[in-house]
Amino acid sequence: MKEFDLLATILPGLPRNGEVIIPAGDDCALLDLAGWENSLLFKTDAVVEGVHFTKEADPRQVGHKALARCLSDIAAMAGSPKSALITLAVGKDFDADWVFKLYEGISETARRYGVSITGGETTCTTGPIMVSVALVGAIDRARCVTRAGANVGDAIFVTGELGGSIHGRHLTFDPRIEEAKWLVNHFPLSAMIDLSDGLAGDLRHILRQSNVGGELLSNAIPISRAAKLSAKTDSSAKPPLLAALTDGEDFELLFTLPSRFAVPLLDEWKGRFPAVKLSCIGKIVKEQGLRLRDSNGTRSAPEHGYTHFS
Amino acid sequence: MKEFDLLATILPGLPRNGEVIIPAGDDCALLDLAGWENSLLFKTDAVVEGVHFTKEADPRQVGHKALARCLSDIAAMAGSPKSALITLAVGKDFDADWVFKLYEGISETARRYGVSITGGETTCTTGPIMVSVALVGAIDRARCVTRAGANVGDAIFVTGELGGSIHGRHLTFDPRIEEAKWLVNHFPLSAMIDLSDGLAGDLRHILRQSNVGGELLSNAIPISRAAKLSAKTDSSAKPPLLAALTDGEDFELLFTLPSRFAVPLLDEWKGRFPAVKLSCIGKIVKEQGLRLRDSNGTRSAPEHGYTHFS
Repeated sequence: MKEFDLLATILPGLPRNGEVIIPAGDDCALLDLAGWENSLLFKTDAVVEGVHFTKEADPRQVGHKALARCLSDIAAMAGSPKSALITLAVGKDFDADWVFKLYEGISETARRYGVSITGGETTCTTGPIMVSVALVGAIDRARCVTRAGANVGDAIFVTGELGGSIHGRHLTFDPRIEEAKWLVNHFPLSAMIDLSDGLAGDLRHILRQSNVGGELLSNAIPISRAAKLSAKTDSSAKPPLLAALTDGEDFELLFTLPSRFAVPLLDEWKGRFPAVKLSCIGKIVKEQGLRLRDSNGTRSAPEHGYTHFS
Repeated sequence: MKEFDLLATILPGLPRNGEVIIPAGDDCALLDLAGWENSLLFKTDAVVEGVHFTKEADPRQVGHKALARCLSDIAAMAGSPKSALITLAVGKDFDADWVFKLYEGISETARRYGVSITGGETTCTTGPIMVSVALVGAIDRARCVTRAGANVGDAIFVTGELGGSIHGRHLTFDPRIEEAKWLVNHFPLSAMIDLSDGLAGDLRHILRQSNVGGELLSNAIPISRAAKLSAKTDSSAKPPLLAALTDGEDFELLFTLPSRFAVPLLDEWKGRFPAVKLSCIGKIVKEQGLRLRDSNGTRSAPEHGYTHFS
């Protein structure tokens, strides 16, 4: 099956929504984004075989991951994802069934989040398979949360449990789109990022761009079962706290807000998202850098350590 | 130099414009597109080493081509290009100087067309270099021209001269953004496409999507100097007319409009774009399929023959 024929088979079945005026099949996709309020979010992200997924991974999960990574970036700005284009680089002897299942995974996730897929392109490579997703989203600019707004005294929060994503969750995680929108609609968030490089590394992005420092309470950091289990069963694995601080691909939300909102937020969150953990893990301080506090005092937090397969 | 450092060096110098609220460096780019009128054009396109450019090609021209291919698609809908994100896949031993020059070429072309570059991503591959561009554009939806509107009796026009693009023009062509906007602002175009796969193949896209047929006048088809020269000096080269019909990557505009506008269009075009040839090359007919007419009568036009390096 040639690449062109393959896409011709796939494109008509891709998700659309009421915003798609011209879907795949013309020179460009044409979109009429409801609720756009004159501001557009625009993001691309690629996953590469051997780096972000292995040959053995379920192609549906690879498709989910490829799109969900971009969705997580839209969530990190509290935006609404709208439409995606897919670029796929495969070898000449590619497995058509694998590609169909990849698009199934992409399409299922797109439908779940109301995203249209308005085009696909397949190119040939002699290297590893690559799936690149371009995504546009809409946002009310007044509600957009960047990485640059954290203030001294703010509380630091994180959703979910961290570390050990490589043991499976990196292929199945739910991007926190609804959670992020609810947060900005109910609380005055000052900064937000999604965790892709690890808590310590990504929090440093907020600290640097906000020109502040941070202090984390070791005991408050939520550690995933996978990270704990790994430390128990594999003597070469990271200690659980280090895994939670430095493992990549958690795709949880990390955000800050004035500390007087910390208790009301925790209360209201439990009612709205009972299945998703929310933890207050520290505070923003004046002194630059990131420190960890435990019963022995404070020490500098580890540097980010993004762990890929390679 | 690591990929992250490379991008950190490049990103701050990328083109911005007044529409960019948040440039590269946050989770997503945030854009406020002037003149958007609630409709968005969205396109991705990739160029691959060994297919769309050779190792020996000037990386600045490769950058130009990567962006200009997407610009040409925006032109084909008569839209205004606004902002692009770049995804670059290179080997571990990549040449940083090559990448800088690539971005120079991208940036120069972006500035010329008023396009912001709002992000870049570099991933690692063991395969050929790939440059994927995602582009958003704005359009007044009432002026958007698709491939599906050609009517029986319409005249068929093409800009520029066709064929032989592989001898150099594929790396240096000017996307017809201004020409397309002028056309839709002054004449009732019924269908338009940009020529990427060759005149015969791309005209068939219009014919199929408009559910009509076409007849081309062999003598009227503008043939490039490069195609003529190649046929003269290389006995294995295509005859010039065949090259003009089937060579890929011309990136000229092919469009249709009611035939009563043909003469006024040719007149006004000469005054507005004296350096760009415009040719009336045939007409839309009822009978499906594409035919060529010359002094010997009519015959079926050749199928499309996209010629890449591979």
